[in-house]
Amino acid sequence: MSSIETLMDNLKIELPSWAFGNAGTRFKVFGTPGTPRTIREKIADAATVHRLTGLAPTVALHIPWDEVADYRALGAYAEDLGVRLGTVNSNTFQDDDYKFGSLTHIDKKVREKAIDHHLACIEVMAETGSTDLKIWLADGTNYPGQGDIRGRQDRLAESLATIYQHIGEGQRLVLEYKFFEPATYMTDVPDWGTAFAQVSALGERAMVCLDTGHHAPGTNIEFIVAQLLRLRKLGSFDFNSRFYADDDLIVGAADPFQLFRILFEVIRGGGLDADSGVALMLDQCHNVEAKIPGQIRSVLNVQEMTARAAMVDLDALTEAQENGDVLTANSVFMDAFYTDVRPRLARWRAEHGLPEDPMAAFARSGYQRQIEAERVGGAQSGWGA
Amino acid sequence: MSSIETLMDNLKIELPSWAFGNAGTRFKVFGTPGTPRTIREKIADAATVHRLTGLAPTVALHIPWDEVADYRALGAYAEDLGVRLGTVNSNTFQDDDYKFGSLTHIDKKVREKAIDHHLACIEVMAETGSTDLKIWLADGTNYPGQGDIRGRQDRLAESLATIYQHIGEGQRLVLEYKFFEPATYMTDVPDWGTAFAQVSALGERAMVCLDTGHHAPGTNIEFIVAQLLRLRKLGSFDFNSRFYADDDLIVGAADPFQLFRILFEVIRGGGLDADSGVALMLDQCHNVEAKIPGQIRSVLNVQEMTARAAMVDLDALTEAQENGDVLTANSVFMDAFYTDVRPRLARWRAEHGLPEDPMAAFARSGYQRQIEAERVGGAQSGWGA
Amino acid sequence: MSSIETLMDNLKIELPSWAFGNAGTRFKVFGTPGTPRTIREKIADAATVHRLTGLAPTVALHIPWDEVADYRALGAYAEDLGVRLGTVNSNTFQDDDYKFGSLTHIDKKVREKAIDHHLACIEVMAETGSTDLKIWLADGTNYPGQGDIRGRQDRLAESLATIYQHIGEGQRLVLEYKFFEPATYMTDVPDWGTAFAQVSALGERAMVCLDTGHHAPGTNIEFIVAQLLRLRKLGSFDFNSRFYADDDLIVGAADPFQLFRILFEVIRGGGLDADSGVALMLDQCHNVEAKIPGQIRSVLNVQEMTARAAMVDLDALTEAQENGDVLTANSVFMDAFYTDVRPRLARWRAEHGLPEDPMAAFARSGYQRQIEAERVGGAQSGWGA
Amino acid sequence: MSSIETLMDNLKIELPSWAFGNAGTRFKVFGTPGTPRTIREKIADAATVHRLTGLAPTVALHIPWDEVADYRALGAYAEDLGVRLGTVNSNTFQDDDYKFGSLTHIDKKVREKAIDHHLACIEVMAETGSTDLKIWLADGTNYPGQGDIRGRQDRLAESLATIYQHIGEGQRLVLEYKFFEPATYMTDVPDWGTAFAQVSALGERAMVCLDTGHHAPGTNIEFIVAQLLRLRKLGSFDFNSRFYADDDLIVGAADPFQLFRILFEVIRGGGLDADSGVALMLDQCHNVEAKIPGQIRSVLNVQEMTARAAMVDLDALTEAQENGDVLTANSVFMDAFYTDVRPRLARWRAEHGLPEDPMAAFARSGYQRQIEAERVGGAQSGWGA
Repeated sequence: MSSIETLMDNLKIELPSWAFGNAGTRFKVFGTPGTPRTIREKIADAATVHRLTGLAPTVALHIPWDEVADYRALGAYAEDLGVRLGTVNSNTFQDDDYKFGSLTHIDKKVREKAIDHHLACIEVMAETGSTDLKIWLADGTNYPGQGDIRGRQDRLAESLATIYQHIGEGQRLVLEYKFFEPATYMTDVPDWGTAFAQVSALGERAMVCLDTGHHAPGTNIEFIVAQLLRLRKLGSFDFNSRFYADDDLIVGAADPFQLFRILFEVIRGGGLDADSGVALMLDQCHNVEAKIPGQIRSVLNVQEMTARAAMVDLDALTEAQENGDVLTANSVFMDAFYTDVRPRLARWRAEHGLPEDPMAAFARSGYQRQIEAERVGGAQSGWGA
Repeated sequence: MSSIETLMDNLKIELPSWAFGNAGTRFKVFGTPGTPRTIREKIADAATVHRLTGLAPTVALHIPWDEVADYRALGAYAEDLGVRLGTVNSNTFQDDDYKFGSLTHIDKKVREKAIDHHLACIEVMAETGSTDLKIWLADGTNYPGQGDIRGRQDRLAESLATIYQHIGEGQRLVLEYKFFEPATYMTDVPDWGTAFAQVSALGERAMVCLDTGHHAPGTNIEFIVAQLLRLRKLGSFDFNSRFYADDDLIVGAADPFQLFRILFEVIRGGGLDADSGVALMLDQCHNVEAKIPGQIRSVLNVQEMTARAAMVDLDALTEAQENGDVLTANSVFMDAFYTDVRPRLARWRAEHGLPEDPMAAFARSGYQRQIEAERVGGAQSGWGA
Repeated sequence: MSSIETLMDNLKIELPSWAFGNAGTRFKVFGTPGTPRTIREKIADAATVHRLTGLAPTVALHIPWDEVADYRALGAYAEDLGVRLGTVNSNTFQDDDYKFGSLTHIDKKVREKAIDHHLACIEVMAETGSTDLKIWLADGTNYPGQGDIRGRQDRLAESLATIYQHIGEGQRLVLEYKFFEPATYMTDVPDWGTAFAQVSALGERAMVCLDTGHHAPGTNIEFIVAQLLRLRKLGSFDFNSRFYADDDLIVGAADPFQLFRILFEVIRGGGLDADSGVALMLDQCHNVEAKIPGQIRSVLNVQEMTARAAMVDLDALTEAQENGDVLTANSVFMDAFYTDVRPRLARWRAEHGLPEDPMAAFARSGYQRQIEAERVGGAQSGWGA
Repeated sequence: MSSIETLMDNLKIELPSWAFGNAGTRFKVFGTPGTPRTIREKIADAATVHRLTGLAPTVALHIPWDEVADYRALGAYAEDLGVRLGTVNSNTFQDDDYKFGSLTHIDKKVREKAIDHHLACIEVMAETGSTDLKIWLADGTNYPGQGDIRGRQDRLAESLATIYQHIGEGQRLVLEYKFFEPATYMTDVPDWGTAFAQVSALGERAMVCLDTGHHAPGTNIEFIVAQLLRLRKLGSFDFNSRFYADDDLIVGAADPFQLFRILFEVIRGGGLDADSGVALMLDQCHNVEAKIPGQIRSVLNVQEMTARAAMVDLDALTEAQENGDVLTANSVFMDAFYTDVRPRLARWRAEHGLPEDPMAAFARSGYQRQIEAERVGGAQSGWGA
């Protein structure tokens, strides 16, 4: 395993444009002053996160929320601010036609509409230079009998195959799975097994996206990480954390030790190697907390737990494992987790011309006051736009 | 246990006005033609459910969604349609001031605002003749450290005490608990124990509301039903069903056997006796299914499972229990569940001048076509109004 | 779909020999009079279940619990009683060597011992004529760091490949997955995805076993059934039911509607067709209830829910699904579930010379009294022998 | 909040005698060399833990597993080794009579037997000077219909009232709740609400025991801690940790951040104050790891998380909470969790004449070799004895 500092130098975490917009629950979405109205404003916020942390060089787009007329101009705008455009995320869950499914819909016309949307996303990728098309589907059913589980799965395979034909050489189709929500009885891509089976049928450029909040209670997520890396099908992460359902909290906030274990398996499986092809992304909702600092805290959490995970003494661990010495193995593992790596990371930041404490630097920067003053009028961005 | 037909004669299930409006998830709310724009239109729909089933003589209001200038006129309107106004539900989760809590808020001014809202609800009750004030709180926190768990609980007790002072002789305060959502880390009234402790501190007219969708995975809900009846603190039910979280599906749709077990304990604990004080309500969201038939199906499900639960041969059951004969006891119990009671209920309906098949009767009635034609323009009701 | 009676004629459910022995929890195993001391006595009990129900023509063996010197003689004994020997189940969880794993163990010698045990099981299969080798592994770890998740998975693949080489033409290797227990942190085959990936790497004669009690809370099991059938990798079922963990209760006892949904997908996916290759087995523990009647009740439950599932009006269901008519689709589905099929099954039994009420017939038969009188002395069978 | 060192000086964690015996799952109990055969040997092991950590001055007994003829002599033996006898734990789950319940049993004779066992335990307490009688009941049912939920609850109340009459002035009855296991359908004391309602009906000397492994998935345990402290009914803790069910792993091993949050609420609610009456105990099973070091690690984990919890800057936290500054409040909270307190605790140990690294000191001590040499022959202790 490379030194921690080298690891830090190579760590890149993609920010989701929508994290800077308003989000909430079915009960209420609370707005906040300064919330972006446009994708340009979202990119400006994301660039601020990167400027203060050095960890977030790319921004993921969500289509149609981030639709613009000229994506090359948008890319140039981003580069001027020091970041690039990243993954393109499709959306087939907010159109009335998709009430009963999109790529799985029983009606061929609706499926074609959903496929066409993905082809349009691939065209956006050509403009933005994005390599990944990420597909999360809200498809599913709420009541037993409502849909034909098997038939929907077959239609999904067919729809994905059509989209996959348009995925170019250096591009990838990344399929995300989710345990439940918005569907409440049956979700068409509910687990890694389904995502794996579906992308395996497509080909080498089809991969699985693991969202850390999308599992049944008690699921050992690091096992899935290790397994997908072993099967060479781990395309990307959507990082966030949860206590109950898909809470979309700040990554590491609910169970930092779980994040440590996940990142340990990522490192162990080569997921942070230069050529791994594993993309790290955030996918969170800042319902009650400040958004930009929420994103700063998130990338710092990933960085910190990556550093702790990298500090595991692998020789000592392997020796204890070989000896069947459970407590020593566990101690070696925990020792890395319990070690306070923050001073070392502050030094790394200083050496890279970054503020030692990015959260404090943001608070001092006046950026928030500035956007609150400037971003007056217009409609704040949210999940609808 | 009284005869099934007598039980049916006395069974009354309150409908929630909001079930007739649009509902959805944080991802999307799908609208449907004919959705009510006003509380009067909601009441008309509810009255239709009652007319076809004979099971739903009252409608619960939600304030401020159902606010009107003249509640007495509203009550008269309802009575003209054959139903009455029932429970008043408060709402302290859609105002920006309540972002960090309402009755538990750290800021006294916000708490007072929330208390005042409840006092206003009690005034509505005086106009409508409602006996129950139902309080469900969205209060909670999303992150560890965000709030002071203990302090919030103390403030809750204080706020409830203030409200309780205004609860009149024939009135009740009914406190609902919920495992999680919208809060994702700590919910201030997360379990029946908390609701029980809080209402016990208030007095005899304070009761617990059990929403069947508000429990941790695996929770034995019929146990809580039996326990609260034993402790004389079961005020009411919010019926619905779920596979995962608070899915708010049609009651009985996810696990009819669970509904059977719950209703068996209700009957066994005297909850359907004339003087029990246990109110049966629905609380559901018809996100993808038709709303009025969704409510018809729901009251029929409760009726049907009540009838099956009432068919348990208690003498045989007790004998098997006393003998430690597990399989016979279970067989006696299951035999009632497996018996098809639908023909008997169809007869009961015919004898009461009701359509034997209320779902088919609604489909035939033309009511849906009529409201789709009439209810054009205006804003469809939903959780926001 | 064939007529229900034809379906009943072909329905075959394998009984596990160990269901007739004592079972319990880590806290206590309660013994009962009449419990078998030998595999011959277990087979006699199993044959009694078949004689009364016509549903259970085969008995699964568990090695070494059911080890005998002469398996051909055992087979002949079984056939004299009207049943045959079925699946051979291996056991690598009760030897001290397997404390830290068997097929996944870090020590090659332990892995070889575990592999050899499976080869010995294949030799038993040659004697008994069994077609299926079922592998359930207790392998896993209790603490983070205790084992190398990835390395264990690689060793599992290697061990299975060695065993698979010995699986003959008409034989199958069936790999069972389980969410947790006895391991408490990481289980080496925790989900269908892992079992699917592992058996897919082996070849056509390697299949997945789905135990209905081996999933995370909230898992939609019928989805997995449909998916594995679609992927042609559903080898067999271990039927039982659960409220919490792997409770191993009587199938259908905890959630009969779930069993109905599972069997609907089995039928819909061709799993009950003559050439489906899907084996139906019970895997239960009768901790507090009588064992032989417990098995009778279990096969009756599977039969009854199969019959109800077969009664779904598929044309009406498909039409409603195509129309997006959620409530009608659900109604069609539920109508079959709610229909009392027991009289029809009693007639089917009468027509086949079986007692109309097998539970009552067993109680009347005097069999239990007889075995209690005969089986005195010796050590009662349990999970240890 | 007092200084961390003062807090450490007063921290006392009771060890369970049974943690030194063999434990396992229903599948297998693995024995280890050196395992105690008698309660005296268990006490010797416990005293070793205390000698190396200074944290564990008392040992809990389990009756009948630890039954001796002369408890005063046993107490003197313990004091010679530097420890004292603590809580007495009753056992009504291993006698055939208790198959269908103990204090809740439908048969009065069985209830009386179970009550008498508790009175015998109180007599032991008189000899040992123990103040707490801890009652954990395995009572429950496995199948719907098997028992009368309400009747069992009433009988429980009656049985507890009889026992409570014998609880002396300085003594306490502490009732433990558990979500499930060994019962799989209905557990008679499944949640804190039930334990609270039952002990509240008894009187001031009846309290609740919170076992950290006894909750439904996702339960916010620190909330219950805060609530029970607020209601003055938190009698004691059974510390352990879990990923799935009641895994009984080393406390802090599965989710150290959860342990931190729990201990924060303990401190915040006065639970570590001298007069709090909150007893801290371990209740664990060392199925695959070494037992004595397992106990050492456990008390160190509690100590370490107590120290981290005590480091929360309460002024800064309160200020952030009052400002609705979610991220700062969370940061203040996390900052304490992330601070490596181990060097400070090593210093505290050195100042108290304890080894700085108790795990290493135990490994060096030769104690394990010694007991392996000495404890040959006889029956190793386990849950049965």
